[in-house]
Amino acid sequence: MTDTLKDLMEFQRETEALAQVAGRLGWDQETVMPRGAADQRGEEMAAMESVLHARRTDPRLADWLDKAQPATEADARAVALIRRSHERTARIPARLATELARLTSVAQGIWAEARAAEDVAAFLPTLDQVVRLVREKGQALADGGDAYDALLQDYEPGATGAGLADLFGTLRPRLVALREAVLGASRQPSPLKGHFPADKQMALARDMASAFGYDWAHGRIDKAVHPFCSGSGDDVRITTRTVESEPFNCLYSTIHETGHAGYEQTVDKAYRLTLLGTGASMGVHESQSRIYENQLGRSAAFTSWLYGRMQGTFGDLGVADADAFYATVNRVGQGYIRTESDEVQYNLHVLLRFDLERELIAGRLAVTDVEAAWNDRFARDFGFAVDKPSNGVLQDVHWSVGLIGYFPTYTLGNVYAGALHEALRADVPDLDVHLAKGDATPATRWLGERLQRHGALREPEATVTAACGFAPTAEPLLGYLEAKFGRIYGL
Amino acid sequence: MTDTLKDLMEFQRETEALAQVAGRLGWDQETVMPRGAADQRGEEMAAMESVLHARRTDPRLADWLDKAQPATEADARAVALIRRSHERTARIPARLATELARLTSVAQGIWAEARAAEDVAAFLPTLDQVVRLVREKGQALADGGDAYDALLQDYEPGATGAGLADLFGTLRPRLVALREAVLGASRQPSPLKGHFPADKQMALARDMASAFGYDWAHGRIDKAVHPFCSGSGDDVRITTRTVESEPFNCLYSTIHETGHAGYEQTVDKAYRLTLLGTGASMGVHESQSRIYENQLGRSAAFTSWLYGRMQGTFGDLGVADADAFYATVNRVGQGYIRTESDEVQYNLHVLLRFDLERELIAGRLAVTDVEAAWNDRFARDFGFAVDKPSNGVLQDVHWSVGLIGYFPTYTLGNVYAGALHEALRADVPDLDVHLAKGDATPATRWLGERLQRHGALREPEATVTAACGFAPTAEPLLGYLEAKFGRIYGL
Repeated sequence: MTDTLKDLMEFQRETEALAQVAGRLGWDQETVMPRGAADQRGEEMAAMESVLHARRTDPRLADWLDKAQPATEADARAVALIRRSHERTARIPARLATELARLTSVAQGIWAEARAAEDVAAFLPTLDQVVRLVREKGQALADGGDAYDALLQDYEPGATGAGLADLFGTLRPRLVALREAVLGASRQPSPLKGHFPADKQMALARDMASAFGYDWAHGRIDKAVHPFCSGSGDDVRITTRTVESEPFNCLYSTIHETGHAGYEQTVDKAYRLTLLGTGASMGVHESQSRIYENQLGRSAAFTSWLYGRMQGTFGDLGVADADAFYATVNRVGQGYIRTESDEVQYNLHVLLRFDLERELIAGRLAVTDVEAAWNDRFARDFGFAVDKPSNGVLQDVHWSVGLIGYFPTYTLGNVYAGALHEALRADVPDLDVHLAKGDATPATRWLGERLQRHGALREPEATVTAACGFAPTAEPLLGYLEAKFGRIYGL
Repeated sequence: MTDTLKDLMEFQRETEALAQVAGRLGWDQETVMPRGAADQRGEEMAAMESVLHARRTDPRLADWLDKAQPATEADARAVALIRRSHERTARIPARLATELARLTSVAQGIWAEARAAEDVAAFLPTLDQVVRLVREKGQALADGGDAYDALLQDYEPGATGAGLADLFGTLRPRLVALREAVLGASRQPSPLKGHFPADKQMALARDMASAFGYDWAHGRIDKAVHPFCSGSGDDVRITTRTVESEPFNCLYSTIHETGHAGYEQTVDKAYRLTLLGTGASMGVHESQSRIYENQLGRSAAFTSWLYGRMQGTFGDLGVADADAFYATVNRVGQGYIRTESDEVQYNLHVLLRFDLERELIAGRLAVTDVEAAWNDRFARDFGFAVDKPSNGVLQDVHWSVGLIGYFPTYTLGNVYAGALHEALRADVPDLDVHLAKGDATPATRWLGERLQRHGALREPEATVTAACGFAPTAEPLLGYLEAKFGRIYGL
């Protein structure tokens, strides 16, 4: 290794270690921090951000990047990722970065108040500022190209608005049709009945994480307001939450976060504390959480095992048998909220947001028209009207904190999960035998070997293509959904 | 505030915020960190230390310190403390700092192995290196003065080896005499009997912390291998441990750490994230933990309340009444280990270490002679022989990690606690009425107002003098111990 490369890699390694520390501080804040410590914690986080920003804009980086001569594929990729990050940071004027940081630090509070008050107008001036500044950021990054495409690269390197629009155009009509058929079917699953104490949910959640191969020596599970996964490398923690009337919330959030954690825990240890030592993109990350949660966790085989475990834990569930339980787990209901949605409708929520945010950044949709556009699109795709802003345009935090370009990665993750599931089933024909015993590790090992261990060594789509042995398209996901829900609903 | 002062204070504030983050990482490591995360955590801690070191040696500091013109007493003190820290750091050659860091990072492991193997010889070469490097550090800091005195300033600014030797010279003969009288008395307290489940100990520990005014909105309690207190300002966490046969371990560790935490939680919020926003010294800090634990927590009044609580929690304790329980709580036994010692013998352990380490640094005692010197002194002060190195010279971690000059602050804390207790009792004559109801807050409020809220605004001894209204001497502690144990043991 040349001296320059060594300097660069050591500097980057220390930066990544500090980023892990900042991430752990976020975990602490959401799980164990005393309630009176918020103000001081704000100063502590700001100090960490200031240190990280100084390192990411360190003037030595440009020189090191010029001179570094990587010899291995991994080193070459690590240097390329540092260069990409450095070039993007350099393109954003300091004034714009400061304005964005200042705005988004207050915008979330304004959004939360507006949502609580069901007052879209109170949020619009702030949303207008966010859109203007994020658009400006996109234009600075695009350097003459498309601003939305440029923003996407923060979340999904290689993706374009046009490419996603094509992909989503295939999904939308068939998902709308499937939704109508399912909700109109004469056969409808029964709801779950029973009492589900929080401590028993948590004990079962731990077993679910174990069933999916969660590595407890390098992680832990705690309760938080929102489920999340935090950390990379040797310390990857997950959180979940409990609602005593609704155990699936806790259990499937846990499997979902175990998917994210499994990815982080399985990346080759040689990549630890480098830019290769994490997921390839938000979309690829989401593909792992989704295939764990849905294609595996909500399968007939796995739910047949879960049915027994839940009866043993909670007593009578008010469903006739394992088949009925499978239908209940996969029940499609009429609802407004993306995060509470099911496999059939979830992507319709995402597609709506993708189209609106792309129009907002392009300047073809004014923020004053966004509520009407949202409600109109919702009525068309979901067949009923939004009743209040908190169930509509004010439901998600993303835009208020400047996350524009993030939403489509949710559906991209589902598309990738569909493709990976098709390849997995072909490679592991007896998977259901194991799932029916509460053991998903033959699947998670396959994903680990084919995809997770490579971290960010390859570009996102190439990562999925290499794992599947074919390029991902919408077809596997659509075929899976139509077959699965056709069977459950007797279509 | 001048611009220079503002720059200095803002820079220092960010440094202190980062130091809090590093401290929180330490808490995490001892309480919740997954067991497989140790190596990565080592890199994360090293990255934080590297950032902190760079800030503490930042070349701008010297210039700012030259030009800063503080207008208030607090600003003047804050600048003086930054200057003191900066000048000390500047005096230590980089080569020596690196060698010390490298050595002490491995020495602890070598000490732990030697202790487990009861093999003093295996530790001596390492101890020799530690003593040489720490002596060199002391000489660099002393700039021609006494090396041990210079080392003391890291823990107890203003203290000198000669001054401490005088103070301890008053303590030693009377403590040796008291020890002999107590252990030779015909009346001996009975040991505690019963079963003490860990979860019930923890529940009672929480009540103990509350009884001493612990602020739960700005802290939390967890289990760890060693009890400690972590953090300053708005997030001050404590830990304790449980031994199912020995509930006083958990309960009195909790009160002890609540004393440290009470100090940190009570410092004037205006000093938060400055060098004033913590305790005045190790000794003053220890005075708070000790007065909470001993003069208050082991008083007849408080233990009369605890007796009822423990009977309610654990059932029969095998003691006749509250008086007998008080004697049991304060039972003096024959033992080797400092950390398990009682109020009578604890300081004799410390005095032994102080005399040996002072001789080591002065070069008057060779490390090859330290075991013999320890055993000889132990036999003289404790009246029986050390049976094995883990009960003697290998029992404490301190020297292996370079902490020389730290031990005397334990006894200084006890001396300060004795003086503060005398002043407290004079000012709050009905204190026992409250303690007997399980409420120590009239005492902790007095300490808060007189001492804790001032943080490091004044030098350590001045802090205690101002709180007491008189200069602390050994007499209040000795008078208190002789009266208390004279009564319990019927001397």
